[in-house]
Amino acid sequence: MNNFSFYNPTKILFGEGQIAKIGKEVPENARVMLAYGGGSIKKNGVYDQVVKALGDRLVSEFSGIEANPEFDTLCRAAEQVKAEDIDFILAAGGGSVIDGVKFIAAAARYDGDPWDILTKGGKVIRSAVPFGSVLTLPATGSEMNSGSVVTRAEYKAKLPFGSPLLYPQFSVLDPVTTYTLPVRQVINGVIDPFTHVMEQYLTYPVGAHLQDRLAEAILQTLIEIGPEALAQPENYEVRANVMWCATMALNGLIGAGVPQDWSTHMIGHELTALYGLDHAQTLAVVLPANLRVRKADKMPKLVQYAERVWHITEGSDDEKAEAAIAKTETFFRNLGAGTRIEDYDLNAEVIDTIIAQLEAHKMVKLGEQQDVTPEVSRKILEAALR
Amino acid sequence: MNNFSFYNPTKILFGEGQIAKIGKEVPENARVMLAYGGGSIKKNGVYDQVVKALGDRLVSEFSGIEANPEFDTLCRAAEQVKAEDIDFILAAGGGSVIDGVKFIAAAARYDGDPWDILTKGGKVIRSAVPFGSVLTLPATGSEMNSGSVVTRAEYKAKLPFGSPLLYPQFSVLDPVTTYTLPVRQVINGVIDPFTHVMEQYLTYPVGAHLQDRLAEAILQTLIEIGPEALAQPENYEVRANVMWCATMALNGLIGAGVPQDWSTHMIGHELTALYGLDHAQTLAVVLPANLRVRKADKMPKLVQYAERVWHITEGSDDEKAEAAIAKTETFFRNLGAGTRIEDYDLNAEVIDTIIAQLEAHKMVKLGEQQDVTPEVSRKILEAALR
Repeated sequence: MNNFSFYNPTKILFGEGQIAKIGKEVPENARVMLAYGGGSIKKNGVYDQVVKALGDRLVSEFSGIEANPEFDTLCRAAEQVKAEDIDFILAAGGGSVIDGVKFIAAAARYDGDPWDILTKGGKVIRSAVPFGSVLTLPATGSEMNSGSVVTRAEYKAKLPFGSPLLYPQFSVLDPVTTYTLPVRQVINGVIDPFTHVMEQYLTYPVGAHLQDRLAEAILQTLIEIGPEALAQPENYEVRANVMWCATMALNGLIGAGVPQDWSTHMIGHELTALYGLDHAQTLAVVLPANLRVRKADKMPKLVQYAERVWHITEGSDDEKAEAAIAKTETFFRNLGAGTRIEDYDLNAEVIDTIIAQLEAHKMVKLGEQQDVTPEVSRKILEAALR
Repeated sequence: MNNFSFYNPTKILFGEGQIAKIGKEVPENARVMLAYGGGSIKKNGVYDQVVKALGDRLVSEFSGIEANPEFDTLCRAAEQVKAEDIDFILAAGGGSVIDGVKFIAAAARYDGDPWDILTKGGKVIRSAVPFGSVLTLPATGSEMNSGSVVTRAEYKAKLPFGSPLLYPQFSVLDPVTTYTLPVRQVINGVIDPFTHVMEQYLTYPVGAHLQDRLAEAILQTLIEIGPEALAQPENYEVRANVMWCATMALNGLIGAGVPQDWSTHMIGHELTALYGLDHAQTLAVVLPANLRVRKADKMPKLVQYAERVWHITEGSDDEKAEAAIAKTETFFRNLGAGTRIEDYDLNAEVIDTIIAQLEAHKMVKLGEQQDVTPEVSRKILEAALR
């Protein structure tokens, strides 16, 4: 087990009706900015519940945070925070809104060019406006971590940053708010956490037996309930488990003390920034191909994954690994996600472009061994083509 | 899944050499009290590492916190905290020292009779001296939760309390510090977390699939590595996993959103208070008997436990449940713990006394359904006799 430090002070309020409790979590006399996306929270009742819970506090709004939240939009929001002397930001939405609010919270307290936050990393962040979240789209885990990913469309860039100052003070997770999600978002909400776990689990063994089993616990739960989430949109129990899996997949716990990969994410970010695929769609495309190309290096964990998660007991190690990768891809496909580049009306020509962008973003030594060079990324994309 | 709130702000510094980092975690100019037990930290090098890490800070000491920390001792420590104007307490030791420091931290800031903290519960706690810990005996989980148990020998009482103000600010977990633990403590350090998990897992199903699998992950890890921890005291990997299992077993995570039992603990506390058995010894005695007596109510989870944790696939539900309970008891016995009252040179005469104490401490509606009355507790003790 590697040395680690683990710290996660976000308070989780989980369950039906918990939005009402935010009145006790937001400071009494705070001047609040309610930040959200395209307005789905006005249709599903979340907006009304939030406004009611905030009571007499002065609340201004910032709406229109996009999927893959856009740098320019967020800079405007940060200006509004400064102009209105906002004390507390409340994000209501999915991972994009929460990621966006993390950037807003940092940018509003940053004296330099906010672009620094994305290019120089979270270390430039010395202060942030406190914020909380009401999650309506479980997937990214942003509700219980201190990381974020922001897009700058003019540069075709989608870049991660983070800071210990960017944990939400609280996050409300009410599974009922997810009943009305579009099918595509439900699919994404299973594939995204599944891949988050894989990035932290499917590397090489370091004797972290507990972390391995915790990761397998989340994977097994997602495999079990993922299809049910699609089949039974208003099954509270199923939605509750999907929601809690998504949070647990990326709150730092299963990644503590183990090597981490994240190359699937970094390659996937370029696909989103260039061609607009949903984040989880890019993961469904890149992960199986990534595991195939790097199978030899990942063999011991692939075999463990095959045996424990998919109950594959027959065959050689290589056969088990191949079978487990095939099971993974079939799981994604059966949920309804395309797992090949060509499934998204793209072709081999995109590969050069993606590689060039990875190089432009200095994503040239990816993976748990920093050996996913642009050449390896190219092989992965070729394996993901059709 | 039941509604829940989860909040755990303790920072964990895990791994060899991490004690050196406490210099950055304790406030710069704090006046520190270093609290510890019988002095084993002076033999295993922890004391020297701690003193070095604290650097130039003014440090006073309070030693002699007992296993099952004693009310009178802790009140003396609280007086010392007040008299010396201590800003930060550093607990170095096992669960007893950390539990003791939680009481000291609360009592030093409490104006009334400190006995209130144990009899009226944590709600009387409005403030606490900040504290951190260096854990040397993994077992109780106290290093990453806000609960504590304190003994008052003159009343033969061992009583739990807790408060959100009593999370350690940080806890250092260096597996190397556990190499020199006596065998009995290593045994206890497997059985205690195992039973903590069981108290939160082995109740009745509420559709909390993820929590169930997380609990099973800890149980499986302990079953796998428990015997190795005894056989290979200086195997870092094994000791690291035992240590992290113990913390994860009682940091609130696996218990979030599920019913909890804790009757084994409450009955066990009386055994310790009356007859001086180690805490984990009482759990090894009470848990198997408790599961046998309440088998019918716990059947669905017992069958799940049998199948998933012990891989028992043959037989009727009842046979699976019986086999799983037998496996549990054998696991404890093979580690070296007595699992019957008579193993500790006690006999049937103690049962009346224990029941009387449970009644005196109002422990008359225990368990996840509040149906473990003194009559049920008596049946459990009778089943645990020989």
